[in-house]
Amino acid sequence: MLRNRLLACLRQIKPINCSPFLRSLSNAANSGLTQVEVDDKSGIATLSMNLPPVNTLTLELMHDLIDSINQIECNKSRGLILTSSNDKVFSAGLDLKELYKPDQERLKEFWTIFQDLWLALHLCGIPTAAAINGHAPAAGCIMATACEYRVMLPDFFIGVHATRFSFLVSKWMMLSYQSVLPRRIVERALNQGKLFSTQEALEVGLIDEVACSKEEALAQCSAFIGTFDKANPIARTLTKQMCRDSDVRELLSDRAGDLRACVDYINTPLFQEGLSAHLQGLKEKK
Amino acid sequence: MLRNRLLACLRQIKPINCSPFLRSLSNAANSGLTQVEVDDKSGIATLSMNLPPVNTLTLELMHDLIDSINQIECNKSRGLILTSSNDKVFSAGLDLKELYKPDQERLKEFWTIFQDLWLALHLCGIPTAAAINGHAPAAGCIMATACEYRVMLPDFFIGVHATRFSFLVSKWMMLSYQSVLPRRIVERALNQGKLFSTQEALEVGLIDEVACSKEEALAQCSAFIGTFDKANPIARTLTKQMCRDSDVRELLSDRAGDLRACVDYINTPLFQEGLSAHLQGLKEKK
Amino acid sequence: MLRNRLLACLRQIKPINCSPFLRSLSNAANSGLTQVEVDDKSGIATLSMNLPPVNTLTLELMHDLIDSINQIECNKSRGLILTSSNDKVFSAGLDLKELYKPDQERLKEFWTIFQDLWLALHLCGIPTAAAINGHAPAAGCIMATACEYRVMLPDFFIGVHATRFSFLVSKWMMLSYQSVLPRRIVERALNQGKLFSTQEALEVGLIDEVACSKEEALAQCSAFIGTFDKANPIARTLTKQMCRDSDVRELLSDRAGDLRACVDYINTPLFQEGLSAHLQGLKEKK
Repeated sequence: MLRNRLLACLRQIKPINCSPFLRSLSNAANSGLTQVEVDDKSGIATLSMNLPPVNTLTLELMHDLIDSINQIECNKSRGLILTSSNDKVFSAGLDLKELYKPDQERLKEFWTIFQDLWLALHLCGIPTAAAINGHAPAAGCIMATACEYRVMLPDFFIGVHATRFSFLVSKWMMLSYQSVLPRRIVERALNQGKLFSTQEALEVGLIDEVACSKEEALAQCSAFIGTFDKANPIARTLTKQMCRDSDVRELLSDRAGDLRACVDYINTPLFQEGLSAHLQGLKEKK
Repeated sequence: MLRNRLLACLRQIKPINCSPFLRSLSNAANSGLTQVEVDDKSGIATLSMNLPPVNTLTLELMHDLIDSINQIECNKSRGLILTSSNDKVFSAGLDLKELYKPDQERLKEFWTIFQDLWLALHLCGIPTAAAINGHAPAAGCIMATACEYRVMLPDFFIGVHATRFSFLVSKWMMLSYQSVLPRRIVERALNQGKLFSTQEALEVGLIDEVACSKEEALAQCSAFIGTFDKANPIARTLTKQMCRDSDVRELLSDRAGDLRACVDYINTPLFQEGLSAHLQGLKEKK
Repeated sequence: MLRNRLLACLRQIKPINCSPFLRSLSNAANSGLTQVEVDDKSGIATLSMNLPPVNTLTLELMHDLIDSINQIECNKSRGLILTSSNDKVFSAGLDLKELYKPDQERLKEFWTIFQDLWLALHLCGIPTAAAINGHAPAAGCIMATACEYRVMLPDFFIGVHATRFSFLVSKWMMLSYQSVLPRRIVERALNQGKLFSTQEALEVGLIDEVACSKEEALAQCSAFIGTFDKANPIARTLTKQMCRDSDVRELLSDRAGDLRACVDYINTPLFQEGLSAHLQGLKEKK
């Protein structure tokens, strides 16, 4: 089994889709929904979500994020920093409108691409860090936990508040949370739908550092990426993937089952009513 | 698999055995071995163990506890607080006399009902908290860890001291302990048969808060139950059950095997001799 | 399953290979590569690695360690303290020369004996502690994490720095690390190839105490072994083995697969080149 894993991993490291022209930024990375900047000196790529007003994870943004992550990996960047070009919101999470009275085929596509996004980020071969320069609720938080390090600016919140809009997260989302936080904290936070303040997130270990500005956050993420300088990059990638293997296997062993369970749940009156009330509440807040 | 779990969970939430007459307190809850009080204002039910002198978990007390837990769930209480009407002992744990030179059929019934009690408490759909107003050794501690929150009064002890009377806990009991404490702490504490003082329990995270009086403990448990107010109750229940799924599956996947292993172990001379010495020691202490 | 485990465990506790003449120190323990001293008063055995210059885990040293561990177990010692007779290095880890341009049959023997050593230490029936009186990199650290307690002297380092010489640790080695440290810390440390200073190791929980001298370290290990005095020794052993069951099963369920994956990886040009550079670097340091 280990051997197969190893071979599979090696395949991932030298992806056959990395054609030469990808070494410059392709369409996706220039679509405007995401922006990629590579620091010539450090070799670190900064991937910014850039979909106003709040980086809602639409089908299109998720597509672009996956393309950008793959390209950054192919271009042999030294590391990837995920951040937002919005100074209030890192990402507001999944596009909830896609879950409300959904078209079934589109819903399946939407959930599958979200699985793909998590897998791309969680298994990304190069070092990853999140510069959380705004609120990071729900899938915004899950994306941050899929990175290897988290630096956050003060006075924002982060957490998986799914139960507040009647949503049931998938087991792999719970495991992503649990890869960062102790089991007892995760259960309670998921049950409450807790949104942690920056300070609370630091205390429980959901984030690693607090930064005063976006520049400082990016610098701290770069410093973290620098801690791998003595490690052989391929051995590092294989080690990372081994550490994350059991979480990823939860999803990979039955992607279709996760999709079915999720679609079934989203179609229940329980969820549709809860979501409706939540969307109404958001509208009234504005 | 997820889908089946979901459906199974939904069945648990709307239990078909919740007949209307159960909405008032039934015989079990009024047996005297347990007492249930529902606060009209908060909607929170307090379940007190009430078997003098030390709330030993006899067959009868365990039966009543399960009935009471089920009724509280059915009555749509907002939460459940487990406590003791004794001001020195929360629960002294399993009735060890049942394990000494046991009648085999009765032993099987005894262990099965203990499995049932843990499952009822661990999977209880509504928020649960333990107001630990006295000592909580062995199964007393396991019941506390099956709740979602623990508040304890000073100068008592809590822990699984099974190795001190030669007992080998089941894997699901270890997992219940491990759902609250780090793995390294659990192994050491189980091996030592460690009883934690209130202060030590707070430091390692076995309890969440210390209270000065039973009233304060109940108030702190109520406050914890209040933290779920923004969560949809059904989504909360499903999330809780997902978080506890892997622990519960350990028992549910082979309840008969756990029973057999336990009965076999209890019948070994090793255990019978160890228990005999332990019971003798307890007698001499008095 | 539990029942089979139990019976298997009982077999391990009363090993049929413990013939009477083993009760005195046998050849292995007197080979000079390891030294065993049993304190008549405390009944605790101290097992010292004694292969100058740096206790490199050669085939021969690993053989002797396994023999010594088995004999200490058979002789009903009250506990085992693993330490070094060298005052600078606890153990420098595996003999890397065995991994460089290896003879295939010898490599298989080498890795198999390393598996055996970890199993012997990790499942040792009596209480174990490591008095880490020198540097403990790589397999030196893994041996320490296989013990139940770790006391370390100041100004040394400990950690699994495998990625620095392009090595990919096996999953059971990761699980051994993870039995002591939180998941998030383990992934990061393995990816970085991090060597923790004594102080850093204490802060994250990789070690339990710091001692000022080897004598103090041995005394602290003895005190830890004393914490099991109230536990029934056989119930303690079974409990320890239950706690470690899932980690051990990872290896035992497919020892041949782990061997194959490891041998395959060691033979890759990636690893051979990385190791070559690492060995060259070590030579230049001298």
